[in-house]
Amino acid sequence: MLSQKIVEGEYILLYLDQRRTYLVKVEAGKTFHTHKGFIKIDDIIGKEYGSTVTSSLGVQFTVLKPLLRDYIMKSVRRTQIMYPKDIALIIIFSGIGPGSRVAEAGTGTGALTTALAHYVRPNGRVYSYEVRSEFLETAEKNIKRAGLMDYVKLKNKDVTAGIDENNLDAVILDMATPWLVTLHAYKALKPCGTLVSFSPTIDQVVKTVEALKENGFIDIETVECLMRGMQTEKGKTRPQTLMTAHTGYITFARKALKPPPAEKKEPKGIANNDV
Amino acid sequence: MLSQKIVEGEYILLYLDQRRTYLVKVEAGKTFHTHKGFIKIDDIIGKEYGSTVTSSLGVQFTVLKPLLRDYIMKSVRRTQIMYPKDIALIIIFSGIGPGSRVAEAGTGTGALTTALAHYVRPNGRVYSYEVRSEFLETAEKNIKRAGLMDYVKLKNKDVTAGIDENNLDAVILDMATPWLVTLHAYKALKPCGTLVSFSPTIDQVVKTVEALKENGFIDIETVECLMRGMQTEKGKTRPQTLMTAHTGYITFARKALKPPPAEKKEPKGIANNDV
Amino acid sequence: MLSQKIVEGEYILLYLDQRRTYLVKVEAGKTFHTHKGFIKIDDIIGKEYGSTVTSSLGVQFTVLKPLLRDYIMKSVRRTQIMYPKDIALIIIFSGIGPGSRVAEAGTGTGALTTALAHYVRPNGRVYSYEVRSEFLETAEKNIKRAGLMDYVKLKNKDVTAGIDENNLDAVILDMATPWLVTLHAYKALKPCGTLVSFSPTIDQVVKTVEALKENGFIDIETVECLMRGMQTEKGKTRPQTLMTAHTGYITFARKALKPPPAEKKEPKGIANNDV
Amino acid sequence: MLSQKIVEGEYILLYLDQRRTYLVKVEAGKTFHTHKGFIKIDDIIGKEYGSTVTSSLGVQFTVLKPLLRDYIMKSVRRTQIMYPKDIALIIIFSGIGPGSRVAEAGTGTGALTTALAHYVRPNGRVYSYEVRSEFLETAEKNIKRAGLMDYVKLKNKDVTAGIDENNLDAVILDMATPWLVTLHAYKALKPCGTLVSFSPTIDQVVKTVEALKENGFIDIETVECLMRGMQTEKGKTRPQTLMTAHTGYITFARKALKPPPAEKKEPKGIANNDV
Repeated sequence: MLSQKIVEGEYILLYLDQRRTYLVKVEAGKTFHTHKGFIKIDDIIGKEYGSTVTSSLGVQFTVLKPLLRDYIMKSVRRTQIMYPKDIALIIIFSGIGPGSRVAEAGTGTGALTTALAHYVRPNGRVYSYEVRSEFLETAEKNIKRAGLMDYVKLKNKDVTAGIDENNLDAVILDMATPWLVTLHAYKALKPCGTLVSFSPTIDQVVKTVEALKENGFIDIETVECLMRGMQTEKGKTRPQTLMTAHTGYITFARKALKPPPAEKKEPKGIANNDV
Repeated sequence: MLSQKIVEGEYILLYLDQRRTYLVKVEAGKTFHTHKGFIKIDDIIGKEYGSTVTSSLGVQFTVLKPLLRDYIMKSVRRTQIMYPKDIALIIIFSGIGPGSRVAEAGTGTGALTTALAHYVRPNGRVYSYEVRSEFLETAEKNIKRAGLMDYVKLKNKDVTAGIDENNLDAVILDMATPWLVTLHAYKALKPCGTLVSFSPTIDQVVKTVEALKENGFIDIETVECLMRGMQTEKGKTRPQTLMTAHTGYITFARKALKPPPAEKKEPKGIANNDV
Repeated sequence: MLSQKIVEGEYILLYLDQRRTYLVKVEAGKTFHTHKGFIKIDDIIGKEYGSTVTSSLGVQFTVLKPLLRDYIMKSVRRTQIMYPKDIALIIIFSGIGPGSRVAEAGTGTGALTTALAHYVRPNGRVYSYEVRSEFLETAEKNIKRAGLMDYVKLKNKDVTAGIDENNLDAVILDMATPWLVTLHAYKALKPCGTLVSFSPTIDQVVKTVEALKENGFIDIETVECLMRGMQTEKGKTRPQTLMTAHTGYITFARKALKPPPAEKKEPKGIANNDV
Repeated sequence: MLSQKIVEGEYILLYLDQRRTYLVKVEAGKTFHTHKGFIKIDDIIGKEYGSTVTSSLGVQFTVLKPLLRDYIMKSVRRTQIMYPKDIALIIIFSGIGPGSRVAEAGTGTGALTTALAHYVRPNGRVYSYEVRSEFLETAEKNIKRAGLMDYVKLKNKDVTAGIDENNLDAVILDMATPWLVTLHAYKALKPCGTLVSFSPTIDQVVKTVEALKENGFIDIETVECLMRGMQTEKGKTRPQTLMTAHTGYITFARKALKPPPAEKKEPKGIANNDV
């Protein structure tokens, strides 16, 4: 088995139990404080991943190599992040994978951006639009932490004004007014390319689906995903007591080669200002 | 926009509506029969993806480029396939991506294998174990159809007898007795590597989780995923009437560097014969 | 134990298994045909409830005394019935019980009417409005079969034109346009009385909730109920494969003593014709 | 409309909004303190139900007449209460109604007892077993508050030692070891009588279902009920963010007239001590 030594500059996940995990940068001479005592980072450098380390109060933590999901859940946040369960459906259902070229809006804290970057490697690219410049800094920090900034282009632009790229495999919208972008997305996508829209409210879904129907998309489908944990223990197994009941609805659609009706000068969606 | 002409030898998805889609190989001179009339494949060759084609009964179909999910849902089946919603969680939660080396058992009809192969490209590999040789033929057909056989090694072997590879990023078990493989998986995984187990019954989950706890795994978590469709139409929006209520529970765990207790000659799991 | 002999004129439930049960009237000289052979009703008369009876093909059926839920699920149907899971929430959450006076619209096949009648006994009453006279015949048949017609007054009237009764404990709306009835319901209810509305679509819910807010109701709450069965068997326990994903949303509200604003001549709801 | 004046000795529900409601006894000269100021009870006496009252800080509360569900949710608690959604299914699915004679164990804080008492009125009866005497005091307080003690007999007895009553319509078990009571329940029920068991864990469900099968019960069915709230607001409608993911599984069964096999001296369930 190849040894996987922990070296400076990497991020590690300190694991106490399922609910208490910490994403920490490996920096010589530093200490990391928890309610179970502090941990000297020097005690970790040079150890193998999967080893344990003991805190000043004698509590053992396991040093894990962070997975994509850890980077997502530990994002520095300026807003609600997209949950891994929803990211999972968005990526797998749209077929985004190695080599895909994807536009996304808005960037937010970069949770979805990070996941997209992970999957389009090594020769794909994520073009991420965000109108609020202060979010881009946070997003860049999160994406860099996961080591994925090479696959992302962050753009401080309003996507409702247009998408610069074309022949894209997918356009993913996680924004307040996705219906204003369906025509732009149609132009930016390659034929059969996938549009995905994520919205918390039903009203957003209805407007977006109507705009998709009018703008040349087919195979339109909206789903929601509920994930429930199980407390598994011999003799006491049961579902968890509380769960996230709702994050958002996910709408998928594919671009067909029916050009939008010639007589329309303005995309219908843009006239719809009553949000 | 680059033109994407349909050429012989490819697979296309003929789309009538959300419920009626057909995965068809493009072969000159052939016809494809539907209950809405037949379609001449020659009418399709050379067209652009996203175009429409008209059947002998005058019904229009759109010619789509199949996505990963289409290949999965249209698998030639010898057994129940794993659903895309579950495949999505398995891949994204375990962080499997470009370059990952993954063992999987059993292959079954190759639905999960296809998805894994899609995501480990271009330099990763899927080692897929299946004890029933007749399933391997079907699986190979399905994986080839999606053009992904270069990334897969199908193995006609009983995974409960051991896993040949080592230093793997992930081991994924979709089989009747996953608890018999936890110790083999521990040896085959690199430190912090992920084990995933998919099981329809709670009894399987409990046995597997117990075996994982005994064999050096931590961060053990079991979830189930419910996906519900929405019928979206202005003024009449509502959730779908019927849904798949259960496919299976998914258990995730990570390998910690606690070597299994030395005194054990037999993996504890194997003594557990009361299934 | 008191003996409970089966006598002519009663209804029995012939039980083969969970999925195959038959609601049958006990009539001397008759036979009841199933795909497992026929059963002579004379073989049942005089037996005790809970006994078994053998069909002409040698298959045993158990003779059960029907419960409320059996009468509901075996209703002669002209339209979709309300499901027991929804009836359960409606009755218990609104506190409808012995002595309650309740108006309901529309009667439909009388499933909810039957349940309400069962629970308002012995001195309460259900006033059930139905504009389609042909439904009332079916409903009456179903309610009589359950022996509950004494507690019901069926009314062939359009509830959007008004509710005749007053000082009611509850008004329950299972109809296409519940928002047209909120002001009538306000007048018909006693202070703190409960309005319940059942609607399949979200659009109906939103319109109804808006109308309730405008017409003096408070404590407005909308829920949906998902019921999933478990296949319980030692060593093979799992949730059922398919389930009803949606029947409808249930909205509850209570009448507060804020009279509707004096300047309104027309109830706001009625202006809303864009269904 | 009959006036419904609030009089001393009654309980009222002070309603601020959906999340802030208070069950208060009407006692002259008292004040009720909230974080929105205090309310003089004298200001309420003589008012009509549904009126508003103003707190010392100028905040308006509506005075509602408590419904069954309010008494349940506001129970003085010594332990987890059963939720109204589960109580609803238990009562309606088992057909318990006016006149029913029901045994229940254990009493706990009396939430289910209160609901049962409400529905068996005026001539039915609830026999409620509780082995922990300290719970009975709390339960009695809760049941009295709802004015339903006339319909309940609280028994400080261990139901695993037997059920005193017979010819019962239903036996409802909300206890750690329901499988120890199935044979007692069989004896206590009238033919076709219903047994209901509520259990948080799957292991309890499996043991109970096995015991029911062995002890003469048929039509055995286990369900779970998920209730999700909707946040309904024109233009912003969406499901609630968090929900109760699990309370318990509910098992229903009916007594058939197959006497338990003669050769068994001990009920099979009682041998099963490995909880």
